Amino acid sequence: MKIDIQSQNDERNVQIEKVGVKNIKYPICVEDRTNKTQQTIAEIDIYVDLPHDHRGTHMSRFLQVLNSFHGENIIFHLPALLLEVKNQLNSEKAYINIRFPYFVQKTAPVSGLTSLLDYDCVFQASLASVYEFQMGVTVPLTTLCPCSKEISNYGAHNQRSYVTILVRYSDFIWLEELIEIAESKASCEIYPLLKRPDEKYVTEKAFDHPAFAEDIVRDITLVLREDPRIKWFSVESENIESIHNHNAYARIEEQKS
Amino acid sequence: MKIDIQSQNDERNVQIEKVGVKNIKYPICVEDRTNKTQQTIAEIDIYVDLPHDHRGTHMSRFLQVLNSFHGENIIFHLPALLLEVKNQLNSEKAYINIRFPYFVQKTAPVSGLTSLLDYDCVFQASLASVYEFQMGVTVPLTTLCPCSKEISNYGAHNQRSYVTILVRYSDFIWLEELIEIAESKASCEIYPLLKRPDEKYVTEKAFDHPAFAEDIVRDITLVLREDPRIKWFSVESENIESIHNHNAYARIEEQKS
Amino acid sequence: MKIDIQSQNDERNVQIEKVGVKNIKYPICVEDRTNKTQQTIAEIDIYVDLPHDHRGTHMSRFLQVLNSFHGENIIFHLPALLLEVKNQLNSEKAYINIRFPYFVQKTAPVSGLTSLLDYDCVFQASLASVYEFQMGVTVPLTTLCPCSKEISNYGAHNQRSYVTILVRYSDFIWLEELIEIAESKASCEIYPLLKRPDEKYVTEKAFDHPAFAEDIVRDITLVLREDPRIKWFSVESENIESIHNHNAYARIEEQKS
Amino acid sequence: MKIDIQSQNDERNVQIEKVGVKNIKYPICVEDRTNKTQQTIAEIDIYVDLPHDHRGTHMSRFLQVLNSFHGENIIFHLPALLLEVKNQLNSEKAYINIRFPYFVQKTAPVSGLTSLLDYDCVFQASLASVYEFQMGVTVPLTTLCPCSKEISNYGAHNQRSYVTILVRYSDFIWLEELIEIAESKASCEIYPLLKRPDEKYVTEKAFDHPAFAEDIVRDITLVLREDPRIKWFSVESENIESIHNHNAYARIEEQKS
Repeated sequence: MKIDIQSQNDERNVQIEKVGVKNIKYPICVEDRTNKTQQTIAEIDIYVDLPHDHRGTHMSRFLQVLNSFHGENIIFHLPALLLEVKNQLNSEKAYINIRFPYFVQKTAPVSGLTSLLDYDCVFQASLASVYEFQMGVTVPLTTLCPCSKEISNYGAHNQRSYVTILVRYSDFIWLEELIEIAESKASCEIYPLLKRPDEKYVTEKAFDHPAFAEDIVRDITLVLREDPRIKWFSVESENIESIHNHNAYARIEEQKS
Repeated sequence: MKIDIQSQNDERNVQIEKVGVKNIKYPICVEDRTNKTQQTIAEIDIYVDLPHDHRGTHMSRFLQVLNSFHGENIIFHLPALLLEVKNQLNSEKAYINIRFPYFVQKTAPVSGLTSLLDYDCVFQASLASVYEFQMGVTVPLTTLCPCSKEISNYGAHNQRSYVTILVRYSDFIWLEELIEIAESKASCEIYPLLKRPDEKYVTEKAFDHPAFAEDIVRDITLVLREDPRIKWFSVESENIESIHNHNAYARIEEQKS
Repeated sequence: MKIDIQSQNDERNVQIEKVGVKNIKYPICVEDRTNKTQQTIAEIDIYVDLPHDHRGTHMSRFLQVLNSFHGENIIFHLPALLLEVKNQLNSEKAYINIRFPYFVQKTAPVSGLTSLLDYDCVFQASLASVYEFQMGVTVPLTTLCPCSKEISNYGAHNQRSYVTILVRYSDFIWLEELIEIAESKASCEIYPLLKRPDEKYVTEKAFDHPAFAEDIVRDITLVLREDPRIKWFSVESENIESIHNHNAYARIEEQKS
Repeated sequence: MKIDIQSQNDERNVQIEKVGVKNIKYPICVEDRTNKTQQTIAEIDIYVDLPHDHRGTHMSRFLQVLNSFHGENIIFHLPALLLEVKNQLNSEKAYINIRFPYFVQKTAPVSGLTSLLDYDCVFQASLASVYEFQMGVTVPLTTLCPCSKEISNYGAHNQRSYVTILVRYSDFIWLEELIEIAESKASCEIYPLLKRPDEKYVTEKAFDHPAFAEDIVRDITLVLREDPRIKWFSVESENIESIHNHNAYARIEEQKS
């Protein structure tokens, strides 16, 4: 008779922090402030802890639990999904990471033409005795260098930057809220579709609002500090410098008491 | 007169944890157990903290300090490099990450033919009042599934896996030592060049040494626990499953008391 | 008055083969053999040629045309989309590349459990006086080495491989047909969800069907040659070798007369 | 007795265009105009054709031939290397692709400070009855939008761009020559290390030299057309647009008669 190897007793006395499946491509449904829900495609990791005396986990059960939540609005079902993972795998703690692009309709500032901009988002959750969740979004935007503007007789170097905000919250926050916070602190926000009057607008707006990576993470920090729903956050800005072949970077992390 | 914007006072009262330059490609020299030193090409990040009352850091100084250590055996000069970064940037703490490929000569198990295998490595260091350093290496190897072997009448699925070991140590450890630990716990180690008798050897050796991702991180943990030089470690294994389009993953992290 | 720079006359006498927008993330709708249509997320490039006497193209118009086809089943609207691009940009030729993941439900061979497998697909089309279209899919599968099996007393190294088929056709072909051709020539096809009896089945099936990268591209070639709808094809196989840190690769391209 | 599977006769009557090894990481030595040679780390593919009646190629021989040229200045040994590959594999044609970063010392325009800038390069060669070779380099540079400058009252959006030049030549050309051609047609070239007077210089220079992706590929084309050593070329420019989350792209390819 064949042995169930994974279920064997393990004598090495080594607990495993995380074991599971990584980089599963999977279609998901997420909450959308404007359109109620949005279909997107995620890359998902699911892990559990493994007690010191169990030889192996059962990888197929992660997929079965994931499948049983197919089509559901994922953010509201994460606690139930993680509980089911914990139960199916007989573990103390379950973890999930979900990375996905999310689209928001942008309206060009002068022409009013609309188009869809993509934002890379992440949900990270775990369930042991308590459920923990953090949510993040990476926002592309324009930054214009204050130093370059100040020291030059004309012009100023600017570039595409990526701001990433991660938050843990007590009350629900929309991805769109985090996006708006990031975009409001940029030299200018980004649009997929810009006509000539729009391009004049964004060029001049960026020139009027120079911001270092340092300025952007600080200004966003001030907003996140004021929001009573947010318990913890981190904010990063990475500039794809137009005058260098490396990037400028700044990061702040704060735990509210 | 032009203002030095970065040196302006900042009233927002927000300290920045990390600010600096990211993804600099740079040729470096690293310690090599066999050949004394090895030239390689790194991707480097250097950051400092920024006090709440300083508007910006001075990005060019990171490059100047890095250039002043060009050609030096990098691992032994990291404390001096970080001290110079701290001084040049008037900061409390400086950080550096260095990612690079490292080559070790492998000897095929039967034919004895030699070839060069690449390992992705990382040095991560910081200097505040104390100097902290951790070193890591990602080791490609073969894993063969114990469950597949047990339940099947013949054959067993196997695949390329990547094991990553990160350590903090009290006494010097060679990258080669970490590589040997990882390879000794694989179903079989990997070689760039294998003749037919070698291929027979590695096929049978892998079949004789089936190992889950769980087994590999546990067996490596037992070795790292026993090494008195190691104060902290993490070990991950990621299998590029041959029977799935996602990966299997396991991770352990331990702080020794 | 501001000049329309792009519309200026150009005296350099250099025609540009392709100019346009690259790496637009965009939600699309594609044909699905089982479910009629499938929502997915694409990365899109759109280009036109630019005559020697025009200074620049009008980048915003590419986005406007793309938006005007939002929500349509994209494959059937590509000729109309490219015609509109040509007209809007006053060009002789228009090009589009669309890369997207596509999901197909797989049924495990013994347990009958179902799960979704992702395939990276591509549509490439151009319109000058004639419309040209090619379609491709990258299929993950298991390959088991015939040499390793033959020379070893037991076992055989195997690995995940990626087979890419590109075709130009006269009559419509489903992505699912190309996927089935690739999977039928593998050592074994891949499933996201496999229970123990399934894992026994795929392990033994792969062992019973060893195949080099060379075998797979040849066997697929024989099928594609026989299909009268296919006018041109290429087929590649890339094995993520379990015994090396590099890949094995084979490619065939054939134009039918 | 064990069969040599690869050497078996094949009855499928399908010739394979390319078969071999892909993505080998390998230290190489390349020609350097300033320092005679430069050590770098390449990613290498080596392929041969396979006649219709041979079952498989011998993957290990590719590595053995590559090893036999270890340490040699690679560009001058490519014909001999490919000849050896052809002979060892009994093939009609052999191919090699070599991708590597290459460093050139840049001098900041005002301060005169020096630093190393990395360029991604490629050598692609094949040997059948004749030897064919093409060489390429991807050059990071700054581009500033002429339209944005013209229509705005102040400022202009600019960004990091990547220009890729590929050439086939009759007489030797330095990588440095291609780099200089690309940099001379940018809005401004890029430097890793810039002090404040340098940053003023590059900001104003970029503002004084606005260039579309179209302008850059055309201006480079005019230079490449005039160089009698160059028989064929392609030139691409890709702008990481600071005002969009997608890129602008232009490409020209010309075969001289």
